Amino acid sequence: MTDVIIAGIGQTEVGEHWDIGLRDLAFAAIQDAVKDSGGLKPQALFVGNMLAPNLSNQAHLGALIADYAGLTGIEAITVEAAGASGGAALRQGYLAVASGMVDVALVIGVEKMTDKIGPSVDAALSTASDSDFEAVQGMTPAAQAALLMKRYMHEYQVPSDGFAGFALTAHANGVNNPYAMFRKAIKLETYTKAEMVSDPLNMFDAAPNADGAAAVILTRRELLPKDFLHPLVKIAGSASAADTLALHDRKDMLYFEAAQMSAGKAMKQAGIILDQINFFEYHDMFNIYAALELESVGFAIRGQGWKLAADNQIGLKGRIPSATMGGLKARGFPGGATGVYQAVEAATQLRGQAGTNQIAGAKVGLIQSLGGPASTAVSHILQRLD
Amino acid sequence: MTDVIIAGIGQTEVGEHWDIGLRDLAFAAIQDAVKDSGGLKPQALFVGNMLAPNLSNQAHLGALIADYAGLTGIEAITVEAAGASGGAALRQGYLAVASGMVDVALVIGVEKMTDKIGPSVDAALSTASDSDFEAVQGMTPAAQAALLMKRYMHEYQVPSDGFAGFALTAHANGVNNPYAMFRKAIKLETYTKAEMVSDPLNMFDAAPNADGAAAVILTRRELLPKDFLHPLVKIAGSASAADTLALHDRKDMLYFEAAQMSAGKAMKQAGIILDQINFFEYHDMFNIYAALELESVGFAIRGQGWKLAADNQIGLKGRIPSATMGGLKARGFPGGATGVYQAVEAATQLRGQAGTNQIAGAKVGLIQSLGGPASTAVSHILQRLD
Repeated sequence: MTDVIIAGIGQTEVGEHWDIGLRDLAFAAIQDAVKDSGGLKPQALFVGNMLAPNLSNQAHLGALIADYAGLTGIEAITVEAAGASGGAALRQGYLAVASGMVDVALVIGVEKMTDKIGPSVDAALSTASDSDFEAVQGMTPAAQAALLMKRYMHEYQVPSDGFAGFALTAHANGVNNPYAMFRKAIKLETYTKAEMVSDPLNMFDAAPNADGAAAVILTRRELLPKDFLHPLVKIAGSASAADTLALHDRKDMLYFEAAQMSAGKAMKQAGIILDQINFFEYHDMFNIYAALELESVGFAIRGQGWKLAADNQIGLKGRIPSATMGGLKARGFPGGATGVYQAVEAATQLRGQAGTNQIAGAKVGLIQSLGGPASTAVSHILQRLD
Repeated sequence: MTDVIIAGIGQTEVGEHWDIGLRDLAFAAIQDAVKDSGGLKPQALFVGNMLAPNLSNQAHLGALIADYAGLTGIEAITVEAAGASGGAALRQGYLAVASGMVDVALVIGVEKMTDKIGPSVDAALSTASDSDFEAVQGMTPAAQAALLMKRYMHEYQVPSDGFAGFALTAHANGVNNPYAMFRKAIKLETYTKAEMVSDPLNMFDAAPNADGAAAVILTRRELLPKDFLHPLVKIAGSASAADTLALHDRKDMLYFEAAQMSAGKAMKQAGIILDQINFFEYHDMFNIYAALELESVGFAIRGQGWKLAADNQIGLKGRIPSATMGGLKARGFPGGATGVYQAVEAATQLRGQAGTNQIAGAKVGLIQSLGGPASTAVSHILQRLD
């Protein structure tokens, strides 16, 4: 099979975009991605979005965005898998191009959470959970993550500031990402004094809801423009897996089966082992997710994921650099757009364009997009070709 | 490329299912489809759904349904393109199997519109339109279809009962479909005396909102069980196209560009010309859509689509039998599930299992799933192999 190349990347600053709508956000990212690709013309559009039907009264984003971007006539759909929508859209774009059925695919993640016209954002985010058995009881994603975190801390005797390392690393990396929502480093005491969201989960254990759009253009290697400027980054592995939707249906809540399965399949497809992965963009919507992803994928043994962060092994010069551009915590969490931001950031690293945050010699990155507590996990291995 | 076969079909009765939830509806259709396929095991799940995030506070249907159907571990996503969600999910399932990346795909359309906990169904359906420029003005899909119908009647001097033929045919065909919501034939005077929804669009110009689930299992020919029982039906062509989301952005509102483009591409891929198509499952959410689809695809010249219906040329023995199992009008309109119902019904015809409604010698069927007024159009050519 021919290589599928990430030929173009684009993103808007993540933040509160009260002044512009979904279509404008999307278009800004698309323009940048098309330009970055050297002018490739998309034939298919895959939109990752979770919340627009609830928060903006707008479904049918495929047609909306294709139309606004001057791309009527192409095929266009929305792909939804809660918080993993962006990763899932990337996978559908990858499949379309890898199969040879589409030559150039545009994958965009877009979300608008802060300037909404629908129900509360918490209610909308809770549609990711089991509505009949979880959300209806008032269990928001944050409340659920707090329960997971509490159980984890109890099982593994984690101190009260045990998760601080995740927030410190993310915010340190966000400083140098011009697209990040927060670009200010924090100190340990910022974490330890932070307001509680849902005990023991505090403000710095949760990623901020945000607006944003990110786009990638995919094509097969032989279809790249002759004057293509960037080092080549390919999607070497792609996989997705579903676990139980409700947390109470799992035998073991502290292991993300779907994270393990999808990462394992993606690595197998890529012919990559764990030691060859130079960085990991996890889905740190909550620090507890990051800890469990590190363990489920295999970067830490069970109960030790938090220590990787506490020991600064997830920093840019650590054993497994993570959240290298700020992660969900500091770059911000624009819902279903998140997985596409991860792809843009990983491509930036692999091209060697990550500036101050550049991981020296990065060749292989793993990105993982979660829906709920890994009820869906989508993993991609991105690899630099030299 | 190897043939992609519709190896299993399943559907629930369309109607008001106040007693069971989304997951149960979906599971009923899946069970039937898996059984019909001889027990094939899906590796990927593509859910067509439009309204669950709004009407049931439930997104993330991929994980929900995979979980409930005992399929955790497989990949699972929701595909959304408003009313074309079912057709779009079918296309993603087709691409996954045709590419060789997935051996067995399960495509399910599910919608629950009559027993809702969210906003009004009209408000939810209006998320298919341009929220900022159409829906916010109060233009529901029915109101918009009424404007289209009025313009059409003016341009082509259509009498006030000119669209009756669509309703008469659909209801006549619904009588013999055990899964149809309405199984009662209507008379011309039922149509002419029907209450107005939005002048000139009356109750029998619009399809009824409904609950239902339909499922198909796709695999490549060589992977069929050895004792596979049914005549083989393949997906010979598949295409999707987007038009402007808002109607006011079109040069010509009375021609469905996306319907023409997607049908044309699907026919080209299948190597089929119009005359070889034995029946057409159009998206008669409104009779005016059916008329415009007949014209845009090429079964009638412009302004004459309604006459095909008036002259009974869309009946089971007509020139181009349409809505052969009742269409959206009589089978019912379960939102984003609709396109998968069309696939199930077309496969039933091509297998020769359509009973009283069987079209003699049917070899090739065209199904078309629309989102909004063909802002998205997804077309598939299904063909019997002998």
